[in-house]
Amino acid sequence: MESTLQTIIFIAPICAVLFAIYLTKSILKHSEGSDKMKEIAGAIQQGAKAFLHTEYMMLSVFALVVGAAIFVFIDGSQLLFVKTETGGSGGTALSFFLGAFTSALAGYIGMWIATRSAVRTTEAAKENLSPALRIAFQSGTVLGLLVVGLGLAGVSILYYFFESPTPIFGFSFGASAIALFARVGGGIFTKAADVGADLVGKVEQGIPEDDPRNPAVIADNVGDNVGDVAGMGADLYESYVGSIIAAIALAATTTFVGETAVLAAMLPIAIAAIGIIASIIGTFFVNTNDETKLNWALLKGLLISTVLLILGSVWLVHATGVQVEGKHQYGVLIAIVAGSSLGVIIGLITEWYTSDHKRHARWIAEQSKTGPATNIIAGISVGLESTALPLLCVVAAIFITHEFAGLYGIAIGAVGMLATLGISLGVDAYGPVADNAGGIAEMSECPPEVRERTDKLDAAGNTTAAIGKGFAIGSAALTSLALFATYAQTLQARGIPFDGLDILEVNVMIGLFLGGIVTYMFGAMTMKAVGRSANHMVNEVRRQFKEIPGLMDGTGKPDYAQCVTIATKGALREMIFPGLLAVAAPITVGCLLGFEALGGMLAGALLSGVLLAIFMANAGGAWDNAKKYIEGGAHGGKGTETHKAAVVGDTVGDPFKDTSGPSMNILLKLMCTVSLVFIPLIAQFV
Amino acid sequence: MESTLQTIIFIAPICAVLFAIYLTKSILKHSEGSDKMKEIAGAIQQGAKAFLHTEYMMLSVFALVVGAAIFVFIDGSQLLFVKTETGGSGGTALSFFLGAFTSALAGYIGMWIATRSAVRTTEAAKENLSPALRIAFQSGTVLGLLVVGLGLAGVSILYYFFESPTPIFGFSFGASAIALFARVGGGIFTKAADVGADLVGKVEQGIPEDDPRNPAVIADNVGDNVGDVAGMGADLYESYVGSIIAAIALAATTTFVGETAVLAAMLPIAIAAIGIIASIIGTFFVNTNDETKLNWALLKGLLISTVLLILGSVWLVHATGVQVEGKHQYGVLIAIVAGSSLGVIIGLITEWYTSDHKRHARWIAEQSKTGPATNIIAGISVGLESTALPLLCVVAAIFITHEFAGLYGIAIGAVGMLATLGISLGVDAYGPVADNAGGIAEMSECPPEVRERTDKLDAAGNTTAAIGKGFAIGSAALTSLALFATYAQTLQARGIPFDGLDILEVNVMIGLFLGGIVTYMFGAMTMKAVGRSANHMVNEVRRQFKEIPGLMDGTGKPDYAQCVTIATKGALREMIFPGLLAVAAPITVGCLLGFEALGGMLAGALLSGVLLAIFMANAGGAWDNAKKYIEGGAHGGKGTETHKAAVVGDTVGDPFKDTSGPSMNILLKLMCTVSLVFIPLIAQFV
Repeated sequence: MESTLQTIIFIAPICAVLFAIYLTKSILKHSEGSDKMKEIAGAIQQGAKAFLHTEYMMLSVFALVVGAAIFVFIDGSQLLFVKTETGGSGGTALSFFLGAFTSALAGYIGMWIATRSAVRTTEAAKENLSPALRIAFQSGTVLGLLVVGLGLAGVSILYYFFESPTPIFGFSFGASAIALFARVGGGIFTKAADVGADLVGKVEQGIPEDDPRNPAVIADNVGDNVGDVAGMGADLYESYVGSIIAAIALAATTTFVGETAVLAAMLPIAIAAIGIIASIIGTFFVNTNDETKLNWALLKGLLISTVLLILGSVWLVHATGVQVEGKHQYGVLIAIVAGSSLGVIIGLITEWYTSDHKRHARWIAEQSKTGPATNIIAGISVGLESTALPLLCVVAAIFITHEFAGLYGIAIGAVGMLATLGISLGVDAYGPVADNAGGIAEMSECPPEVRERTDKLDAAGNTTAAIGKGFAIGSAALTSLALFATYAQTLQARGIPFDGLDILEVNVMIGLFLGGIVTYMFGAMTMKAVGRSANHMVNEVRRQFKEIPGLMDGTGKPDYAQCVTIATKGALREMIFPGLLAVAAPITVGCLLGFEALGGMLAGALLSGVLLAIFMANAGGAWDNAKKYIEGGAHGGKGTETHKAAVVGDTVGDPFKDTSGPSMNILLKLMCTVSLVFIPLIAQFV
Repeated sequence: MESTLQTIIFIAPICAVLFAIYLTKSILKHSEGSDKMKEIAGAIQQGAKAFLHTEYMMLSVFALVVGAAIFVFIDGSQLLFVKTETGGSGGTALSFFLGAFTSALAGYIGMWIATRSAVRTTEAAKENLSPALRIAFQSGTVLGLLVVGLGLAGVSILYYFFESPTPIFGFSFGASAIALFARVGGGIFTKAADVGADLVGKVEQGIPEDDPRNPAVIADNVGDNVGDVAGMGADLYESYVGSIIAAIALAATTTFVGETAVLAAMLPIAIAAIGIIASIIGTFFVNTNDETKLNWALLKGLLISTVLLILGSVWLVHATGVQVEGKHQYGVLIAIVAGSSLGVIIGLITEWYTSDHKRHARWIAEQSKTGPATNIIAGISVGLESTALPLLCVVAAIFITHEFAGLYGIAIGAVGMLATLGISLGVDAYGPVADNAGGIAEMSECPPEVRERTDKLDAAGNTTAAIGKGFAIGSAALTSLALFATYAQTLQARGIPFDGLDILEVNVMIGLFLGGIVTYMFGAMTMKAVGRSANHMVNEVRRQFKEIPGLMDGTGKPDYAQCVTIATKGALREMIFPGLLAVAAPITVGCLLGFEALGGMLAGALLSGVLLAIFMANAGGAWDNAKKYIEGGAHGGKGTETHKAAVVGDTVGDPFKDTSGPSMNILLKLMCTVSLVFIPLIAQFV
C-alpha cells in the first residue's frame, strides 16, 4: 500500500506542473490583438513585474534575516535542547526558504500568466464568449495547479527527507511569510491604486473608469492582479500546506487502529494528490457558450472535482484502513467529506449575504434611500449577522470531524476542503483576469459588444469571488484550528512542561485577551494603511493632471510607472508594522508569559479574527453589490442621491473586503506557524 | 471583628438611603420656574412615567414567568439533586424577585428625581452656574446612592438569611433581567426618538433642536433619561451586585491563611459599605462657581472618595487579616487598589480616544474633509485601535489581582472598582439632567445666558459620560470575569462532573465559537432594532406634521404622548429577541453540549463582547465629538460638506455608542448569571 501511495504522491505534482505548462502554452498561442491592446497590456505586465521585483527584493532581505534567526535559534537549539527530534540542524531554516521560495514562485508565475491572459481574453471576446471564458479560466487554473503542485511537492519531499513533521513547520512558516507580503501588501496596493484612480480620475476630472488618460489606471489594473491573483494564491498556498503539515503532525500524536500510523501520516499527502488529479479532470468541464450559464460552467467543474475527490478518498481510506482508535471505521472518510462540504457551504452562504440578487444586499440598497448613514448602519448589521451561519458551519465541521476522527480528523477535514484547490483557485483567480480584460477593452476602445462580453465574464467572476472569499476564510479557520491543535500536541509530544489550555488559568485567559487585541490592532493598522497609501496616490495623480501638459486632451502621456511605484512603496512600507505585530506578538508573549498564555493567544486571535474576517468581507461584499444593484437601475439608478449613498458604503467596504478582512486570514495562520516554529526558542525562556 | 463589620454593613445602606432622601427633599425645595417650564417638564415626567409603567408591566409578566421557572427547575431541583446546598426551596426565586424589584425601584426613583431636577436646574441656571451644578449632580447622586444602598442591603440581607452564595445568584440574575430591559430597551427607545426628532424636525421641517413644535421632542428628552439614567443605573447595579456576589462565592472556594474564611466572605460587603460612606463624603466636594473648573469639580469628588475608600480598605484588610493562602499578606488590599485604579484609567483612556480636545476625534474631523466614506473609515479605525489600551489594562488588572489574591482577588478587584459607585454614578447620571435642563431652557424660551450655562454643564457632562462609559465597560468585563470564575468554582464545589475548560477539548472550543457568534448576532439585532423602531417614529412624526392643523405656526398642539408610546412599544417589542437570545443561548448550549461547552461559550462571549463593546462605544463617541469639533468652527464649521460628512459618522455612531455597545455589557453579565442560576437544571441533562 505504501508504495502505491508513494507512486500517486510522486505522479500528482508532476501532472499538475506539466498540465500548467500545457495550459500556459495554449494560452500564449492566442492573439494579443491590436497594437493599442498590446501597449496597454504591456504596461500592466510591466507594472506587475515592477511590483513583484520590489516586493521580492524586500522579501529576500526579510527571508534572510528570519531564516538566519531560525537557523541560530531553532535549528541550533533543537540540536542542543530537544535532542530526540530528528531533522536537526538546518532543517527548519531550509524548509523555511523552500516554503517562501515556492510560494513566491507560484505567485510570480500566476501573475505572469494572468497579465498575459487578460489581453488575450479581450481579443478572444471579440469572437465569442466561450473562448474568452476558456482563456480566463485556464489562466486561473495555471495558478491553482502551481499552488497545489509546488505545495505538495515541497511538503512530500521534505517529509520524505526529514521523516518528521517538525522541520516542515518551517515550510509552512515560509509560505505564511510570503502570504503576509502578498495579501497585506497586495491589499494595500490594490486599494490605494483604486482610490487614487477613482477619486481623482472619476470624481475630480470626470473621466470614465479605465480611461487611459488616468495616470493611476495601470496601477489599478495591476492592483487587481496583485491582490486577487498573487494575494489570494499565497493565502491559499499557506492554508494548503498548513493543513497538510498539521495533519501529518497530528498523525504522529494520534493512536490508530492496527499498524496504520505510517499510512495515516501519508494519507493527507495522498488525499492532496488525488485532489490534484480530480482538479485536472474537472477543468475539462468548464465550458459554455451560453452566457446565462457562466456561473454554472464554473461551478460544474468544481463539483465534478469534488465528487471525484470523494470517490478517490473512499478508495484511499478503505485501502489504507486508517482508523483513529475508538472512532468509526470510516471516520476519516467522513471527516474528508465534512471538510470538502464545508468549503462549498460557506461559499454559498457568503454569496447569499453579498449577492445583488439576494435580499441582504438589496436591503442595503433600500436603506441607501435615506442617505449614507443608514446605508452604513445596514451594511454593518448585515456584516455582523453574516458571521453566524458560516461559523455555525465551522462549529459543525469541528464537531463532526472530531467526533469521527479526533484532532487528526479536524486537520484531515481541512485537507479535504483544500484538496481540490487546483480548480477552486482556478475558478477564483479567473475573476481578476476577466476584470482586467474588461479594462483593456475599455482602454483600447474595442467595440461595445466586446466590453459587454467581458462584463458578463466579470459578473460571473464576482459571484465566484464571493464564494472564493468565503472559502478562503473557512479554510483559514479550519487550518488555523488544525495548526493550533498541532501546537498543543507538539508541546506534549516533545515533553515540554505544558499544563494544557484551561481558560480558568489566568495565563490562558490573559493570552485569550491578548489574541483578541492583536486582531483588532491588526484590523486598525491595515485600515489606516490603506488611507495613508491612498493619500499619496491621490496627490501623485493630481500632480500629473496638473503638471503634464495635454494629459486631458490626449496629447500628453501619463506616467503610469510612477503611480505603480508609489502604490508599491506604499504597500511595502505600510505592511511592515502589521507584519511585525503578527510575527513578534506570539514570540514575545510566549517568551514572557509561557506556552499557556501563547496557546490562549492563538485561540483568542482565532476566535476574534475569524469573526472580524467574515464581518469585514461580507459587509464589504454586500455594500459593493448594493451599489451595483442600484447602478443596474434600482431605486433610480446612477446619479441619484441613493446611488451616492451606496457609493459611500462601497468605499468603506473596499478596505474591509480587500485589505483588512483577507489579511486577517494570514494573521491567524501566521501566528500559529510562528508559534510552532519558535517552540524551541520559547522553551529556553520559560 | 465580625460584629464591627456587621455594624458597618448595617449602617452604610441606611446612610445611603437617608442621604438620598435628604438630597431629594433639598432638590424638590427649589423652584420649578415659569408655567411654561412646568408644562414642558410635566410632559417629560409624564412620558418617563408612561415608559416605565409600560416597561414594568411587561417586566412583571417576564419576572413572574422566569421566577416560576426558577422556582420549579432550580429551587425544586436543588432540594432534589444537590441536597448539600443550604438555602434550598424558594431561595433563588425569592432572590430573583428581590433583585429585579430593587433594581427597578432604583431606576424608577432615579428617573423620577432626574425628570424633576432638570427643570429646577434650568431655573437655578437663571441665577448662576453653581446652584445649577449642585442640583444636577445631587440628582445623579440620588440614583447612585439608591443603587449602592439597595444593592448592598439586598445582598447582605440575603446572605445573612441564607448563609450561602448560591441562592443569591438569583439576586444577580434579577438585577440582570432589569438591566436587559433598561439598557437594551432604553437604548432602542432613546435612539428611535432621537432619529425621529432629528430627521423629520431638523432636516425635513427645518426647525431647531428641542423645538416644542416637534412631536418627538418630549420623547427625545425622555429618551435621555431612559437610556442614560435608568439604563446606566441598571447596568451598574448589575455590575455592583454581581461583583459582590462573585467575591462572596469565590471566598467559599478559596483557602485563606488563618481562620479568616468567614471574614473573607464578609469583606466584599464591608468594602462596599466603606465605599458608600466614602461616596457620601465625596459628594460634599463637588462644588464650583468657576465654569472652567466644572470637570475638575466633578472629578475632585470622585478622587476624594477613592482615596477614602483605599484608606478604609487598608484598615479593613489589616484588621480582618484576610490573606489568600500562598499570596502576599496585603494581597487583598493590592487587588482593591488595582481594581479601583482600573476604573479611573479606562475612563481616562476612553476620554483620550473620544474627546474633541484630543487627536483621535480631531483626526476623524480632518478625514471628514474628503467626505463621509473617509469619515466612516477613520471612525472605524479609531474604534478598532481603541480596544487595545483598555483591554491591556484589564489584562494587567487580571494579572495583578490574581497574582496577589487568586481568583478571589479578581472579584475583590471588581468590588474595589465599583465600591465608590455612589458618587461615580452620580457624576455620570448628572449628564442627562444637564442635557434635559438645556432642552427645557430652549423649549421654554429662557434668556440665552441660561442656555449658555446649561450648555456648559452639558459639555462637562459629555466628558464624564465618556469616562462613565469606559467605567461601565471595564466594570462589566471584570465582573463578568469574576462571575465566570465563580461559575467554574461553583461546579467544582458542588461536585458536578466538570473537566475544566481546556480549549483543546473540542466542546470548549465549540463553546468559544458559539459565544463569539452570540455577541455578533446580538450586535446585529440591536443595530437593526434601532433602525426599525426609528422608522416607526419617523412615520408618526411625519403624520403629525401633516395631519395636525397649525402645528408649524404654533396654533396646533403636537401629540407628544403618541410619540412616547411609539418609542416605548418599539423598544419593548424590539428587545424581545435579543433578550431571548441572551437568556436562551447559555441554557440551550449547557443542556445540549454540557458545562464545558457552556464555559467556553461564556469565555468566547466575554472576549468578543468586550472587544465589540469598546469598539462600538469609542467609535461612536469619537464620531460624535468629531462632529462637535467641526460645529465648534473647525474645518469651516456647520453647513459645510465637511460637517455633513461628520453628521453621517455621528448618525452611524449613535446606535453604536448608545444601544449596541452598552447592551453588550449586559449580555456578558447576563449570560454568566443565567449560567450560574441554571446550573442545577443543566446538571439534569448532562
